[in-house]
Amino acid sequence: MLLHKSTWIEIEAYLARSKTVIIPIGSNEQHGPTGLLGTDWMCPEIIAHKAQTSADLLVAPTFNIGMAQHHLGFPGTIALRPSTFMAAIGDWCLSLAGHGFEKLYFLNGHGGNVATIEAAFSELYAEASFAGRPRGFACKLMNWWDLKGVMRVAQKQFPEGHGSHATPSEIAITQWAYPDAIKSADYTPKIAPTGPIREALDFRARYADGRMGSDPAQASPEKGGELVAAAASALIEDVARFAAEPAVR
Amino acid sequence: MLLHKSTWIEIEAYLARSKTVIIPIGSNEQHGPTGLLGTDWMCPEIIAHKAQTSADLLVAPTFNIGMAQHHLGFPGTIALRPSTFMAAIGDWCLSLAGHGFEKLYFLNGHGGNVATIEAAFSELYAEASFAGRPRGFACKLMNWWDLKGVMRVAQKQFPEGHGSHATPSEIAITQWAYPDAIKSADYTPKIAPTGPIREALDFRARYADGRMGSDPAQASPEKGGELVAAAASALIEDVARFAAEPAVR
Amino acid sequence: MLLHKSTWIEIEAYLARSKTVIIPIGSNEQHGPTGLLGTDWMCPEIIAHKAQTSADLLVAPTFNIGMAQHHLGFPGTIALRPSTFMAAIGDWCLSLAGHGFEKLYFLNGHGGNVATIEAAFSELYAEASFAGRPRGFACKLMNWWDLKGVMRVAQKQFPEGHGSHATPSEIAITQWAYPDAIKSADYTPKIAPTGPIREALDFRARYADGRMGSDPAQASPEKGGELVAAAASALIEDVARFAAEPAVR
Amino acid sequence: MLLHKSTWIEIEAYLARSKTVIIPIGSNEQHGPTGLLGTDWMCPEIIAHKAQTSADLLVAPTFNIGMAQHHLGFPGTIALRPSTFMAAIGDWCLSLAGHGFEKLYFLNGHGGNVATIEAAFSELYAEASFAGRPRGFACKLMNWWDLKGVMRVAQKQFPEGHGSHATPSEIAITQWAYPDAIKSADYTPKIAPTGPIREALDFRARYADGRMGSDPAQASPEKGGELVAAAASALIEDVARFAAEPAVR
Amino acid sequence: MLLHKSTWIEIEAYLARSKTVIIPIGSNEQHGPTGLLGTDWMCPEIIAHKAQTSADLLVAPTFNIGMAQHHLGFPGTIALRPSTFMAAIGDWCLSLAGHGFEKLYFLNGHGGNVATIEAAFSELYAEASFAGRPRGFACKLMNWWDLKGVMRVAQKQFPEGHGSHATPSEIAITQWAYPDAIKSADYTPKIAPTGPIREALDFRARYADGRMGSDPAQASPEKGGELVAAAASALIEDVARFAAEPAVR
Amino acid sequence: MLLHKSTWIEIEAYLARSKTVIIPIGSNEQHGPTGLLGTDWMCPEIIAHKAQTSADLLVAPTFNIGMAQHHLGFPGTIALRPSTFMAAIGDWCLSLAGHGFEKLYFLNGHGGNVATIEAAFSELYAEASFAGRPRGFACKLMNWWDLKGVMRVAQKQFPEGHGSHATPSEIAITQWAYPDAIKSADYTPKIAPTGPIREALDFRARYADGRMGSDPAQASPEKGGELVAAAASALIEDVARFAAEPAVR
Repeated sequence: MLLHKSTWIEIEAYLARSKTVIIPIGSNEQHGPTGLLGTDWMCPEIIAHKAQTSADLLVAPTFNIGMAQHHLGFPGTIALRPSTFMAAIGDWCLSLAGHGFEKLYFLNGHGGNVATIEAAFSELYAEASFAGRPRGFACKLMNWWDLKGVMRVAQKQFPEGHGSHATPSEIAITQWAYPDAIKSADYTPKIAPTGPIREALDFRARYADGRMGSDPAQASPEKGGELVAAAASALIEDVARFAAEPAVR
Repeated sequence: MLLHKSTWIEIEAYLARSKTVIIPIGSNEQHGPTGLLGTDWMCPEIIAHKAQTSADLLVAPTFNIGMAQHHLGFPGTIALRPSTFMAAIGDWCLSLAGHGFEKLYFLNGHGGNVATIEAAFSELYAEASFAGRPRGFACKLMNWWDLKGVMRVAQKQFPEGHGSHATPSEIAITQWAYPDAIKSADYTPKIAPTGPIREALDFRARYADGRMGSDPAQASPEKGGELVAAAASALIEDVARFAAEPAVR
Repeated sequence: MLLHKSTWIEIEAYLARSKTVIIPIGSNEQHGPTGLLGTDWMCPEIIAHKAQTSADLLVAPTFNIGMAQHHLGFPGTIALRPSTFMAAIGDWCLSLAGHGFEKLYFLNGHGGNVATIEAAFSELYAEASFAGRPRGFACKLMNWWDLKGVMRVAQKQFPEGHGSHATPSEIAITQWAYPDAIKSADYTPKIAPTGPIREALDFRARYADGRMGSDPAQASPEKGGELVAAAASALIEDVARFAAEPAVR
Repeated sequence: MLLHKSTWIEIEAYLARSKTVIIPIGSNEQHGPTGLLGTDWMCPEIIAHKAQTSADLLVAPTFNIGMAQHHLGFPGTIALRPSTFMAAIGDWCLSLAGHGFEKLYFLNGHGGNVATIEAAFSELYAEASFAGRPRGFACKLMNWWDLKGVMRVAQKQFPEGHGSHATPSEIAITQWAYPDAIKSADYTPKIAPTGPIREALDFRARYADGRMGSDPAQASPEKGGELVAAAASALIEDVARFAAEPAVR
Repeated sequence: MLLHKSTWIEIEAYLARSKTVIIPIGSNEQHGPTGLLGTDWMCPEIIAHKAQTSADLLVAPTFNIGMAQHHLGFPGTIALRPSTFMAAIGDWCLSLAGHGFEKLYFLNGHGGNVATIEAAFSELYAEASFAGRPRGFACKLMNWWDLKGVMRVAQKQFPEGHGSHATPSEIAITQWAYPDAIKSADYTPKIAPTGPIREALDFRARYADGRMGSDPAQASPEKGGELVAAAASALIEDVARFAAEPAVR
Repeated sequence: MLLHKSTWIEIEAYLARSKTVIIPIGSNEQHGPTGLLGTDWMCPEIIAHKAQTSADLLVAPTFNIGMAQHHLGFPGTIALRPSTFMAAIGDWCLSLAGHGFEKLYFLNGHGGNVATIEAAFSELYAEASFAGRPRGFACKLMNWWDLKGVMRVAQKQFPEGHGSHATPSEIAITQWAYPDAIKSADYTPKIAPTGPIREALDFRARYADGRMGSDPAQASPEKGGELVAAAASALIEDVARFAAEPAVR
């Protein structure tokens, strides 16, 4: 069930049977010579939308811009500063919690988002902690590649050259979902270098074509389909566990 | 051309021929008993995506959450405070301007966004004005219903009961784009009341089912298709005019 | 009744008979070669002060600095960033509401303020909406030129060359109130150009002497007096209507 | 010379002969049973306006709302939070400095403003210090009662019962300027108590009628006139000294 | 009793007998050619730690970075902007008040902190005042040199050349506490100049070696010991007075 | 070399031979029935201070308050909100970078700090990335327990019951450094429970005495000494590697 294709009356009805909502969250940022700029928000969206076709899950609109300051040296990247990102996550959470949602599950598609999302959750909890009152809802962050079994599939598919940015697994997922938008290029070097992440100019100087440690040439729509299937079914289970935790006080 | 389905290399190439980008912007909020929660971000997205199929336009990902505090009394609404919304718009604009975009065209789908988007533009301009330097880019806000000729179509289609929230025109557009998500209901009263907009509790007390002045029962996918066609072609012209303004100093 | 010329005991007594207060709000910014820098805060102040001489109205001190970033290229302009302006409006409102005022009527003298004032109101309402509680007060923004009947007078006085900045009508009002401060100049061109409003450098380049679309040479103290009379009596009626709305929940 | 009664062209001309501007700054807050709510912004305004009649000084519009949180328990008080106040002072200063003013002289009328104004100056300086660059302007805070010779007059006029809030000296000044707004009351006790300043509820509990240590019954318009004369001439000298400091680097 | 060397169970027990806590607060900034960078946070720490050896006092960890923007031109200075400093003081206070502390006593070692700390207190009080509720705790700021009797000792020790920055008294205190870190230098001039405090570049230009009005060569560990003894015993008395004030409402 | 026991002249000299500085950072928060409230800032301070006795390292004052909102249910905890923490880290970094430090090494003692510190670094980098300019310095976060070889020692010492909060390893370190402050208690259960971390009330309900998964009874000063020795020598090597990275652009 997609929140944005529902009416408020349907959401009211859903709340009578569940207090859990999934928010796909990612980033719009360069993904090397062939990866789509939308890769990191498309992947969790694709997985969550797939999962809700076979389970009674509610999926919110996708939070499509994240903490991508280091990619700003490549055209098309759109980033929020951490402080802006935190404020926006806070407003999303408080909006949903105001309706009675108690379990906010963020399915994330961008490693660079992790620290800031966790900080945003802490900011929300802190508001309650400083006031000495219960928060009333719980937040959970899950990267789609950390869903049970997903990395096992990816490692079998891409035993080397998976890397950490513009990975063949994320590109495969978007190829499966958007076969009309598959791109190709000659990668030099075949496997991109790795190193630290700092500001955008430094990033572009270190990673000339935008990849980090990856060889995206290995991606294929079929592999993407396998990954989506594995992730969607693991997501259903993980959300069920989170939803089943005793009611938030 | 959709930015998020492009690579950074394709955007770099696009920038060599145009400095203009369209950002669909809206809100995710209740739209009465039958309107989709996503109506206000779907409409500009539908129109902009349509327009770029017949003109060389670049459309950014959709900014899907806006200033909808007054709708928070209805489940499913997700809102940003004006201050958060302004910070996020600022980061979007500075990201895009950093790549060389000089004309940022926001195609808006939510009346409640207008004041805050304008304030966000002023905040961006103010940064340059206080520093005594040129801003380097220009922002434009256009509501899809204000595109030339659109309201004429709507007034012919809906001579009465158009109203201002959960209007038949916006619902018709989503019906055209998402025929699988058409909902129906008995509306009482047929035409909803009107009045001021204040905080969420006040809003819900005044507008019991969420509509303002509208009779959405008149919507149909066909009418939606007419509206999209009119809006898309007016958009192409309006963007061309904006793009043709002399280069930003 | 002027709040600042009253004691707290007099305000306490006023609150027993009315919950409404008028706040003149404007901007201190260049108004062309002959307009006073204070024009935009003086006009609503003049009108509100006039109105309270013939009706039991309470007028707060004038909020004299507003959203004038685009005028910063001209000496004497003092501006608040939209974010600062919103924070200050918020504190004014919460101060007054804390005393029991439930209807806060802002009489505005500067078009550039409108979006930011509306955003400030939304920020205040949002605080209540996110908390799921009533706000307890209502805000209204009214531009003095939008008061009933005022533009009819102005159009009769200035059938052409009224324009939108450094207009003959606002200059006439200050001439009526401050005849000692009437200035004159040769305007070239007679009617100033029009166009978009962006950052300060862009504004100064477009509008060399600071006017937009206006021919202020038509102003006279007599015309100013007519405008003040029309506006003051319309203000009394409009405030009465606002005050008479059912008590804020 | 009053900035707000001048045109931008007159200010441009003034800047050719002086880089100094005076900003009257105060607060709108309760001043006991007889003091005007505007006392603290009226006093510096009255003194500065007087001074500019006999010297070539430029006086900005009055900054009329300040740090008065502790007075919010009394109707009519309007306060800015320190953080808001600092942001607004910052924008005023940067506006004026952008025009070329290098000496910003704040003539203050409210003791409760002092710490926050100083913190605001430090915030402005800090921006330059963190960037390792010169600020380009200097700020000075002067309380009108600290102008040379003023307290000597006040002590002679009010050897006891001067106190620190709703003092006979400040009330005398407003009586001199606004004889139509002189109020009277029986004060009990004659001299008000003193003590610490904390939040508004605590303040009202400690200082039942709003006075602190003062006996305002001693005020008279004549005494006010003496104080204004002393303050205005001391102001002229003090501003001249500040203006004569070597040019800001 | 040092809070950081205690367990939470010991603090819980302490709260049963006292609601007062002392927070040493200072700055880490240049102190001339021989003063330690930590001087301003070490002095209140040394005095407070000394005092708690002979009285049942609770001393929090030291707040060691303050408002030192003007010293940023000298290596080793670490400063918080006033706005950051205020936010951090606020969080410290609300943390401690949340445990039941009602009297928060800040023992300060840096003159440059005073205005911002006072503004921070006002910001905390304002939050309660705007909400119309009691704050529940009281804050007090005391500079160690303003403790009763301390300046008498210092004036006897240093009848001239005490100055206001890198003073012999503060350097003597650190010499007494850290005899291993005593430094020496030839001071030119013997007594440093005085003047205003603005941004860092201006400060460094005025005060070449970092001192203001002082001759630190007069410092000795013995004099430091005398000062600490005087300050510690005065602190015990002053805290007792503050603690004995009627319970905060 | 301790920054705060140095003069600015000594830091200037140090900068001629190194651009690297170590900042011990932690938290002041409950550590179970026997752990000191200062444990998390003392541990990195102890290790860093030890390391600088045998290598030419510069250690800044300790950043002693961190992101501990979840511990606010236990007396003595002092926490910063993530947003405050980020602002303060930003000011520390910009202060140090302004002096020419290019490698800022944060030695952290609190797991709860990690996300927020990383977000703070990103905020700093983002400022440069949005401006399209180099940042000029690099930040590194290292938890003391992640220093090479440290966990091997801890796992040998505490094969079970190490846990994640109030661990025997961190308590052992403070016992070694502050043998006068060793506390004891009967722990029930011997090994504390584990689970998620949310707001303070939730935390206290889950973890009754404040421990998470740990059995601190196993700590001893001797074990603490071993850990400090291992950590200090690993720190020297890790800092050397960081310092040796090519100069920041």
